[in-house]
Amino acid sequence: MARVVNFAAGPSCLPEEVLKQAAKEMLDCNGSGMGVNEMSHRSSTFQKIFDETEALVRELMNVPDNYKVLFLQGGASTQFAMIPLNLGIKYNKAAYVDTGTWSTKAIKEAKRFITVDTIASSADKGYSYIPKNVVFQGDYDYAHITLNNTIKGSHWEYIPETNGIPLVADISSCILSEPLDVSKFGVLYAGAQKNLAPAGVTLVIIREDLITDKPLDKTPLMLTYKTHSDKGSMFNTPPCWNIYMMNLNLKWIKKLGGAEGMAKRNHEKADLLYNYLDKSDYYYATVEKGSRSLMNVPFLTYEKDEEKAKKINKLFVLGAEKEDMYNLAGHRSVGGMRASIYNAMDIKGVQKLVKYMEKFAQENLRK
Amino acid sequence: MARVVNFAAGPSCLPEEVLKQAAKEMLDCNGSGMGVNEMSHRSSTFQKIFDETEALVRELMNVPDNYKVLFLQGGASTQFAMIPLNLGIKYNKAAYVDTGTWSTKAIKEAKRFITVDTIASSADKGYSYIPKNVVFQGDYDYAHITLNNTIKGSHWEYIPETNGIPLVADISSCILSEPLDVSKFGVLYAGAQKNLAPAGVTLVIIREDLITDKPLDKTPLMLTYKTHSDKGSMFNTPPCWNIYMMNLNLKWIKKLGGAEGMAKRNHEKADLLYNYLDKSDYYYATVEKGSRSLMNVPFLTYEKDEEKAKKINKLFVLGAEKEDMYNLAGHRSVGGMRASIYNAMDIKGVQKLVKYMEKFAQENLRK
Repeated sequence: MARVVNFAAGPSCLPEEVLKQAAKEMLDCNGSGMGVNEMSHRSSTFQKIFDETEALVRELMNVPDNYKVLFLQGGASTQFAMIPLNLGIKYNKAAYVDTGTWSTKAIKEAKRFITVDTIASSADKGYSYIPKNVVFQGDYDYAHITLNNTIKGSHWEYIPETNGIPLVADISSCILSEPLDVSKFGVLYAGAQKNLAPAGVTLVIIREDLITDKPLDKTPLMLTYKTHSDKGSMFNTPPCWNIYMMNLNLKWIKKLGGAEGMAKRNHEKADLLYNYLDKSDYYYATVEKGSRSLMNVPFLTYEKDEEKAKKINKLFVLGAEKEDMYNLAGHRSVGGMRASIYNAMDIKGVQKLVKYMEKFAQENLRK
Repeated sequence: MARVVNFAAGPSCLPEEVLKQAAKEMLDCNGSGMGVNEMSHRSSTFQKIFDETEALVRELMNVPDNYKVLFLQGGASTQFAMIPLNLGIKYNKAAYVDTGTWSTKAIKEAKRFITVDTIASSADKGYSYIPKNVVFQGDYDYAHITLNNTIKGSHWEYIPETNGIPLVADISSCILSEPLDVSKFGVLYAGAQKNLAPAGVTLVIIREDLITDKPLDKTPLMLTYKTHSDKGSMFNTPPCWNIYMMNLNLKWIKKLGGAEGMAKRNHEKADLLYNYLDKSDYYYATVEKGSRSLMNVPFLTYEKDEEKAKKINKLFVLGAEKEDMYNLAGHRSVGGMRASIYNAMDIKGVQKLVKYMEKFAQENLRK
């Protein structure tokens, strides 16, 4: 079968040249006579891959020297616990903004360990926007936001003022999609399975002064940042293959102009899709202008009747599959449609989608 | 470069046909038009791989129906915390046997959450044997052993009596190396990077009655077995590629006769190496007969002078590399040499090693 266009929200499409390189090196990486799937993490060949990957993260994200870059496991969901356990140690209190699903889960998990103030929320309008003019202030150990909301399709277009409180952000679904000023954050974390690598590695960028040797009582050793930062992410065996794939992917990003190159590429794709949605009398984007994600674009038709709408959405998704476009159903908790157009998605994929959307609209408007 | 013989202790060699299959499907797995590295964990293609992998684990290990099979992240090191947090809930007390390095670490981590009685240890002889006639008895929530000791090279040749106390075993470095009666255990866990798959997935086999919804206070959600068992290991995104590679590897194991086939294969290799060591007047195996690992074979030369021995060991390892045999140095905490001869290691690899050992001994005995 030919390659399909993969609009999955994560794990999501990877650049074809990255996959080809990985296939080529499967039995012999860098003349070592073995592949990365079977290579000791203590070997010089892997250490070189590892060091290069960290250097690429630092270069492409312009990470200041007083930050550690960690390669962990367990996804963002594990970070939901690690953040309060390691940072919530002075006031035992943090401020969160609730922008839906993943931030709601982050809040729920943090509450098991510390006091959480939800200082802003967009729940009133189904999380279809990012709260404006958010300012963090007070005796908080940290402030937490979800920079891009994969399921709701919203994105912070500004970085809130924190008055010295360390800002923590989940950037799983927008990392390296455009430039980001790392120095404005205390901790950034990202499950890799969207813009970076296959699922199984979590990138954490943490300011050194936030790495404590005294996390909350009974914090598991593996959930202590210091455990991993002291050992260069090799306290235990890291997910070597996933890090290697991140390495290949970061090289691809670098070749295409780094974060700036990705921003240009991603704005072109997102503009095409949002512009079409905004002028359409059949579909509409569910997220307010000024809060829209570059990466995840949920949309609905104007059909008001719920049963009819469900039927149309299903037809839309099935029709797209017939044209080799996959994973366009909205998250099961939301419904409707969603196109995730991460870094690796080519403009041609979005052009093909818009063309299909036009055709589908015409056919169904006639009915 | 040609493929080398890889004696690494983990991550370790994988069967060439598994790697070839993975390379072949890199851009298109099962006609889906995408590879597993970029495939949604919610897709029907991946769900099929996942279900098949679980079924293969159940079949090859003869897992009884009242056990759950979980695919987690974080390695055995994370299990060192999950076990006491989820099982240590009635007496807040467990009994451990200390057989070196990894069991020592498991004990240290468990002590942060519950009371630990170390009821037996082989520390008195440098962990060169497994304590005999171990019997667990008393008010313990569970009993813990490390079935195979990767670094020290020892292995339990009997399953200790526990008098109804659930027995927990770390089987990271011996899983599916030979048949094992799962029904004798409460929990079995294994980091996959030795006999199963690339690093990044942890297999847990747990008796259902040990899966509690009331783990110790403040146990992170991601470190609660119930979180994962309730959602079929898809509470969050699983490490899809690593599970897929496990799938291919399990099929290879099945083709070669399952656990019984592996036992035959592994005994043949281990016998060859141990028999050579036992009759050698230049080398010796460091572990007592009756406690020896099928998988990890540490050995030393009879050279008594420490500095001279270090020099010889280094020469041995470098000489082996010249003949395309890699990772024969003992663990950095132990020194000497170690050959890890996991399932995927062919008898030819061990034959080549023994031939080299003979030559090296002759050359150095002459000096």
